[in-house]
Amino acid sequence: MSFNKILIANRGEIALRIMQTCRELGIATVAVYSTADKNSLHVKYADEAVCIGPAAGKESYLNVSRIIAAAEITNADAIHPGYGFLAENADFAEVCASTGLKFIGPTADMIRKMGDKNSAKETMIAAGVPVIPGSDGLIRDAAHAYASAEEIGYPIILKPTAGGGGKGMRVVNEPDMLEKALVASQTEAQQAFGNKGVYMEKFVQSPRHVEIQILSDQHGTTLHLGERDCSIQRRHQKLIEETPSPVVDEALRNEMGAAAVAAASAINYEGAGTIEFLLDTDNSFYFMEMNTRIQVEHPVTEERYDVDLIKEQILIAAGESIADRQYTPKGHSIECRINAEDPENAFRPSPGELQVFHTPGGHGIRVDSHGYASYRVPPHYDSMIAKLIVTAHSREEAINRMLRALDEFIVVGIKTTIPFHKKLLQSPEFRSGQYDTHFLETFPYGKQ
Amino acid sequence: MSFNKILIANRGEIALRIMQTCRELGIATVAVYSTADKNSLHVKYADEAVCIGPAAGKESYLNVSRIIAAAEITNADAIHPGYGFLAENADFAEVCASTGLKFIGPTADMIRKMGDKNSAKETMIAAGVPVIPGSDGLIRDAAHAYASAEEIGYPIILKPTAGGGGKGMRVVNEPDMLEKALVASQTEAQQAFGNKGVYMEKFVQSPRHVEIQILSDQHGTTLHLGERDCSIQRRHQKLIEETPSPVVDEALRNEMGAAAVAAASAINYEGAGTIEFLLDTDNSFYFMEMNTRIQVEHPVTEERYDVDLIKEQILIAAGESIADRQYTPKGHSIECRINAEDPENAFRPSPGELQVFHTPGGHGIRVDSHGYASYRVPPHYDSMIAKLIVTAHSREEAINRMLRALDEFIVVGIKTTIPFHKKLLQSPEFRSGQYDTHFLETFPYGKQ
Repeated sequence: MSFNKILIANRGEIALRIMQTCRELGIATVAVYSTADKNSLHVKYADEAVCIGPAAGKESYLNVSRIIAAAEITNADAIHPGYGFLAENADFAEVCASTGLKFIGPTADMIRKMGDKNSAKETMIAAGVPVIPGSDGLIRDAAHAYASAEEIGYPIILKPTAGGGGKGMRVVNEPDMLEKALVASQTEAQQAFGNKGVYMEKFVQSPRHVEIQILSDQHGTTLHLGERDCSIQRRHQKLIEETPSPVVDEALRNEMGAAAVAAASAINYEGAGTIEFLLDTDNSFYFMEMNTRIQVEHPVTEERYDVDLIKEQILIAAGESIADRQYTPKGHSIECRINAEDPENAFRPSPGELQVFHTPGGHGIRVDSHGYASYRVPPHYDSMIAKLIVTAHSREEAINRMLRALDEFIVVGIKTTIPFHKKLLQSPEFRSGQYDTHFLETFPYGKQ
Repeated sequence: MSFNKILIANRGEIALRIMQTCRELGIATVAVYSTADKNSLHVKYADEAVCIGPAAGKESYLNVSRIIAAAEITNADAIHPGYGFLAENADFAEVCASTGLKFIGPTADMIRKMGDKNSAKETMIAAGVPVIPGSDGLIRDAAHAYASAEEIGYPIILKPTAGGGGKGMRVVNEPDMLEKALVASQTEAQQAFGNKGVYMEKFVQSPRHVEIQILSDQHGTTLHLGERDCSIQRRHQKLIEETPSPVVDEALRNEMGAAAVAAASAINYEGAGTIEFLLDTDNSFYFMEMNTRIQVEHPVTEERYDVDLIKEQILIAAGESIADRQYTPKGHSIECRINAEDPENAFRPSPGELQVFHTPGGHGIRVDSHGYASYRVPPHYDSMIAKLIVTAHSREEAINRMLRALDEFIVVGIKTTIPFHKKLLQSPEFRSGQYDTHFLETFPYGKQ
């Protein structure tokens, strides 16, 4: 079994990325696009392209019926959702299955099991995966909150059960602040996700974000491909990712890898997935969530493990076994997200025309981008215009390579995060590898 | 010992390529440029840039005294010559040495030993490196030509002792044609190189061009990094290079590698070098020439052997030993030369403005280029505007990856060899790996 034609239900660099692999595999591609993206590279590169509506997500990239219609019109036999948009929408996966379209990813049931953070946590506990000490389910009322916090021990953090991206989260250091924080968290959760459910967890003071990439085939094999360290975050948005992590040694990698494989196996997972862990300074690690899709930062794993993860997703969806795969790591890989944002001005979005857009080249450099000179970055979608990935023999060599590549990367017309990355990569803290996810809160770059 | 500042006595992609490595090593760079190159990327990227004269080679990139003056003015302590221009000019290497500038490459004496083809051949015979049966030195007269051809056996080929690039060469299949060909060859050699000396060799009907990359340090260690197959040539100009060669197995690689190491060792070589062999269908191979510099096609070796050859050149020049180096090959790497030429029109040069210049990206793709949108390719220099290098697990995967990358490569404003490469890589002959250096003579692409 294989696919003849895949519809890519996404835009930007990831749409182009998926099409690259499809073309290498001899699979025809269908782009869908909003009117705001009519000049986008993924539209030009696809074998066929279908306009599915205006810029607003609900009218186009989040519109299930229009995407399914586009697949039926073009006679596609599978859909790759990329990341974001419908990638973790169980209903979409279900509709695909019911109309005979292979959703390249897990089933609706698997997505649901991991989509609700509370039920995911219960699944992990049953599978023996370490989870962070927390409340017994959602916080019912103030009394429940006080009792839970007492048991877990301060500081604690309140988190909405739906959604992500840091919205609605609150850290509480002492009982006096708890009730007010609970109300704020629930209100924000209701506004952002239409669900005011909030749960409580132990708050780790100095955490690293370390995630494990896994692949699971339809025949019961799950393999892990090491970790990615994504501790350089601004308001829970990742800006730099790398593998290996400067704080993970082989023993810890094996331990976290085994936990990630157990997590995926617990739900008979299928496809590529990422288990996100919070890593404490004492090497304790706790399950945060599972992303049941390809991640933005997948290229660092591809470079260090010499594998095309999109190809693996497609082959797994087509029924191929990965039992014989050998993914051997080598070197050090770092990704910088080049966003159309002004780092001097609180990372405010900076859409507009790329008057000059020159990407770096040479040994050890990879660029994943849908940008080109004269392309106009639309204001409607996420601000990432390129991922710059470098690979070298060591972390130090990779940092130096990244710096020279950032020097070569020329964008005129909009503001980007390039100057931010240059400054960050030259900082002694980043060079040392010793920092936590709060590092950027105090990093002196413009007006944070 | 190390270098603080390196002057790059070259232009285009190789100047930029050398500067990338210098920057990664923390070494300052000086660009030299002709007035025709004032908007070139290597000028913009260098830490300092010195205009050394007008477009004509003799007035700028071939002008030894101006380049030395630029190095002295900027206080550079070494010069990297790149390829072409002064890279194999022994006098230049000598002047560098006499003014206290380290020439990054072999000494003048080594360059001379390999620069004259006839004396190089004698050196190889003494070192036990197989050379093609040929005349006893330069052809003295018609009688000597007839006697030599009789001894070697027809077909034979006449070759100028100076120069390269196919100029002045003549194949002779039978005695009747010999004298006329000799006169033509000598006349052309005189015109092109100012030296009418011509020698004779056995002509191999169906040869492959297979060359071995070597590195030699100052302490007597020479290592080889496998072969590059450069059999896709048009009029002796390489268009596609790859490693490994589809016709070289491990035993032959070891045999050719040992011969190349013997060749370099015979002259106590220092630096990066390439031993070019002509490979016959029966796996006999014959020394053709040694290039005492970095080659255009060095990136395929870098990708397969995971090494930065420019970095190795610099470290060797600084006195580092390579005795402990391990260069381990993995995968398959192919390079297509993207030239500003019109393949539909006898590959006529097509200089002019790059109105659109969009390079491909993603997994397994490397681009070495000095091109950018709005850059004007000058008519004065060689026509290469980019090298597109892909690496994959197998030759078939690499070909498919190259095809998708060529699809993504968009150049508007001038003609390029991109359509030629697409057609060639899809041909059953190229896919089979079974062809010789004459393949393009009959390849049906436009008006060859």
